[in-house]
Amino acid sequence: MTSTVEERLRFTGLQDKVMSADAAAALINNGDTLGLSGFTRAGDAKFVPHALVERAKGLEDFKVDVYTGASLGFDTDALMSDAGIVRKRLPFQVDRTMRGHINKGDVGFIDQHLSVTSEYLRQGAMKIDVAIIEATAITEDGYLIPTSSVGNSPIYVESADKVIIELNVAAPAELEGLHDIYVPEKQGERGPIPIMHANDRVGAKGIKLDMNKVVAIVVTEQEDSPSNIVPPDAETQQMANHLLDFFRKEIKEGRLTNTLAPLQSGIGSVANAVLAGMVDSEFEELEVYSEVLQDAVFELIDAGKVKSASCCSFTLSREKMDAVLPRIKEYADKLVLRPQDISNSPEVIRRLGLICMNTALEFDIYGNVNSTHVSGSKMMNGIGGSGDFARAGRLSIFVTKSVAKDGKISSIVPMVSHVDHTEHDVDVVVTEQGIADLRGLTPRERAALIIENCAHPMYKEALRNYFEEAKATVGGQTPHMLTKAFSFHNNLAEHGTMLP
Amino acid sequence: MTSTVEERLRFTGLQDKVMSADAAAALINNGDTLGLSGFTRAGDAKFVPHALVERAKGLEDFKVDVYTGASLGFDTDALMSDAGIVRKRLPFQVDRTMRGHINKGDVGFIDQHLSVTSEYLRQGAMKIDVAIIEATAITEDGYLIPTSSVGNSPIYVESADKVIIELNVAAPAELEGLHDIYVPEKQGERGPIPIMHANDRVGAKGIKLDMNKVVAIVVTEQEDSPSNIVPPDAETQQMANHLLDFFRKEIKEGRLTNTLAPLQSGIGSVANAVLAGMVDSEFEELEVYSEVLQDAVFELIDAGKVKSASCCSFTLSREKMDAVLPRIKEYADKLVLRPQDISNSPEVIRRLGLICMNTALEFDIYGNVNSTHVSGSKMMNGIGGSGDFARAGRLSIFVTKSVAKDGKISSIVPMVSHVDHTEHDVDVVVTEQGIADLRGLTPRERAALIIENCAHPMYKEALRNYFEEAKATVGGQTPHMLTKAFSFHNNLAEHGTMLP
Repeated sequence: MTSTVEERLRFTGLQDKVMSADAAAALINNGDTLGLSGFTRAGDAKFVPHALVERAKGLEDFKVDVYTGASLGFDTDALMSDAGIVRKRLPFQVDRTMRGHINKGDVGFIDQHLSVTSEYLRQGAMKIDVAIIEATAITEDGYLIPTSSVGNSPIYVESADKVIIELNVAAPAELEGLHDIYVPEKQGERGPIPIMHANDRVGAKGIKLDMNKVVAIVVTEQEDSPSNIVPPDAETQQMANHLLDFFRKEIKEGRLTNTLAPLQSGIGSVANAVLAGMVDSEFEELEVYSEVLQDAVFELIDAGKVKSASCCSFTLSREKMDAVLPRIKEYADKLVLRPQDISNSPEVIRRLGLICMNTALEFDIYGNVNSTHVSGSKMMNGIGGSGDFARAGRLSIFVTKSVAKDGKISSIVPMVSHVDHTEHDVDVVVTEQGIADLRGLTPRERAALIIENCAHPMYKEALRNYFEEAKATVGGQTPHMLTKAFSFHNNLAEHGTMLP
Repeated sequence: MTSTVEERLRFTGLQDKVMSADAAAALINNGDTLGLSGFTRAGDAKFVPHALVERAKGLEDFKVDVYTGASLGFDTDALMSDAGIVRKRLPFQVDRTMRGHINKGDVGFIDQHLSVTSEYLRQGAMKIDVAIIEATAITEDGYLIPTSSVGNSPIYVESADKVIIELNVAAPAELEGLHDIYVPEKQGERGPIPIMHANDRVGAKGIKLDMNKVVAIVVTEQEDSPSNIVPPDAETQQMANHLLDFFRKEIKEGRLTNTLAPLQSGIGSVANAVLAGMVDSEFEELEVYSEVLQDAVFELIDAGKVKSASCCSFTLSREKMDAVLPRIKEYADKLVLRPQDISNSPEVIRRLGLICMNTALEFDIYGNVNSTHVSGSKMMNGIGGSGDFARAGRLSIFVTKSVAKDGKISSIVPMVSHVDHTEHDVDVVVTEQGIADLRGLTPRERAALIIENCAHPMYKEALRNYFEEAKATVGGQTPHMLTKAFSFHNNLAEHGTMLP
């Protein structure tokens, strides 16, 4: 798949900027804010950050702020955080090592809705010094063609004083033509985002470069880190089935047709299993409007079930990469890659009326969702785009297994230890036990339904007891006993299990 | 101001539908869902709901669901809930009596973002049986002209099987021409909402009526209940001053100009004081894009400071009503009244880049905001539109006095007892003590700043102690000790004060 540098670097006058990753890393100053390409391991800047880690080993107190699209692959977050060079990191990460540093307080992490980073930059409330962006090509007319993700790259390039490009000759040349780079003006000066269907093309083929900003081009040859999605287990499949049954019920009641509504799904095996479950189904002419496309979307496209699919990145398993990438051109009429403020735009999400499926860490009996913090304090990954979608979508669905750690942890608790999605933004919750449709229900009605339909049998009685005692002793719109609201979590901390 | 019925009821063929409120109320069936006009006491259906209360006195177990724009005036919520006829109420209320019934569990209350009620109806997830809408006029070409609010009236009329109109001859005839009724199509079938400036007119002059649905016209003559806004006290004025200084700093740093950005302000005296503080200021050519306009906006218009003002209702003091209503026509080129899914549209809010000012009940050291629940259980009013604005706006600002009840309650707590706005959606918090600009800060940095700048001196040490102990013993992204997170609230419950 590899092409020559000449085929990729087509703009005249940049050839003298080609240099090694080490030389490019030397252009980064202590204290700089870096804007990196990369979203769910896809299309990430791979070599200059690693070279920076090496360079920093000889320097004292070298620190940078690292902004990205979302998560990086290639162990970059692990290496950077272990090297101690990251002062602040935003808006999302999933790295186990970096997570450790964040929770120790070594790395400052700002957990941000994925659609808003660009707005802070556009307003001047944040600023990028150096953008480091992976590219498929630089065109003769001066566009940077991203690779397998777009992320925040357009705004990082716009905001940056210096741009370093990782020209990845291992990225399929045929990615060129898949992107649609629509960049809103400043707030107050912009018009509507004119997207009416998932595959509407409304922008440019790539990111327009100001050549005066380009300080380095590093030629690389390295595929994305494959996704590590696990195949669905029995419980994952049960959750997927509950959701498919729910869609069928919505169709029966006339609220949806068998083309459903544009689908968004967070990363993870449940979302993948739901989509995989549509391959042999009555659902057809589907639209996908999501952040990230996983394996199942390509299976659905291959099965002729998908009319159009919009994303900000695609993240595939090793196997799927080998199957899809050589023939990525065949997907070009259906597939669009967008910046994350467009893939996650509340304007477009509400207009299209998305069905949004995201994963919860825990939810409470009233339908509040914790997506991020273990026991209220420790960061797992981040809110990602779930908040963009849950508030603006047509149907906001959260999924999680009812228990974790062999039943020692109940994912349904009296009160979540951290709130990412309030009850106002949660329409449906699903576990392998069942589904609770919360629309049109008061908090007290929600509690009764969630406990009966979604909680694991071994926790039902404790949850019922909490709810009944709270109603009897405190009452209110959302009955809570603040001295016992975290009793499940406190049991876990003291006795190693949430069970009373 | 009163005109004749003939001047108001101009559509031919409806005259035989004119009847008493009692006769109209008799058309409502047990179990119906009612969609009432009314938003912040303005433009509410006043007589048919009262007649229904009277009618229900002779009936057993008569219950209806009551949907509105937002709060009602004229004691309607008190009368209905005391009469026991309300099964479910949404999306907002502010009535002390109804609040009591909600917290006892007698009235089921669904606390809903004000922009989303229409979406649930349009999807078919909810349904109106009878719409009861106050009107200024019914035009010769079949439009219902609302009065001082639009609220959810367009979608209630669209969804309803029966429409009852309260034709209020005391409403200024000159209200006709102020409204702009833009009704989106269903999700997936709609285009962009083409609003680029606060006073853009993009819809119809009124609500298009299907005359077959109109079952009753009740002629009324009753002004809106005036707002009961209190004049700013010293602390309210301090908060307003902090905010005005903050805007000046944003201008100095090049992020705003002295025309600022379109302003949204929740109802209340701080918001009013901020706007009043702009009357004699360097700010000019202001735009207002808000749910409700209070007295100060009209003072700003009179002072020549406002270029345009968009709202869903206006709610004035007795004094201001007398001053403004007789010359409401003079405001017609600046003022637009819209449906609440347009005044609160995330699409428009983000496009215009609103500066959003809303009131918190309490916020925590990490910047999470509770707008609704006293001690986590008891409903105060509801989230209203604050969530629509806080998530989508340019700057999301929350204000509250640092203490309440003579210092027995701190509005800044270790962990809020209920979350309406997560830290992701809160940019700036303000008390009379000072202001904390949270943009670009990690949770730990937020905590340090909020405690120092916003907490009352008598609570600073206890908050610092909590924060330091949580960092030392638990750590994490958002250090919390779940056994002590509600210690302030538990102190209050046990000892009548949050002070340790």
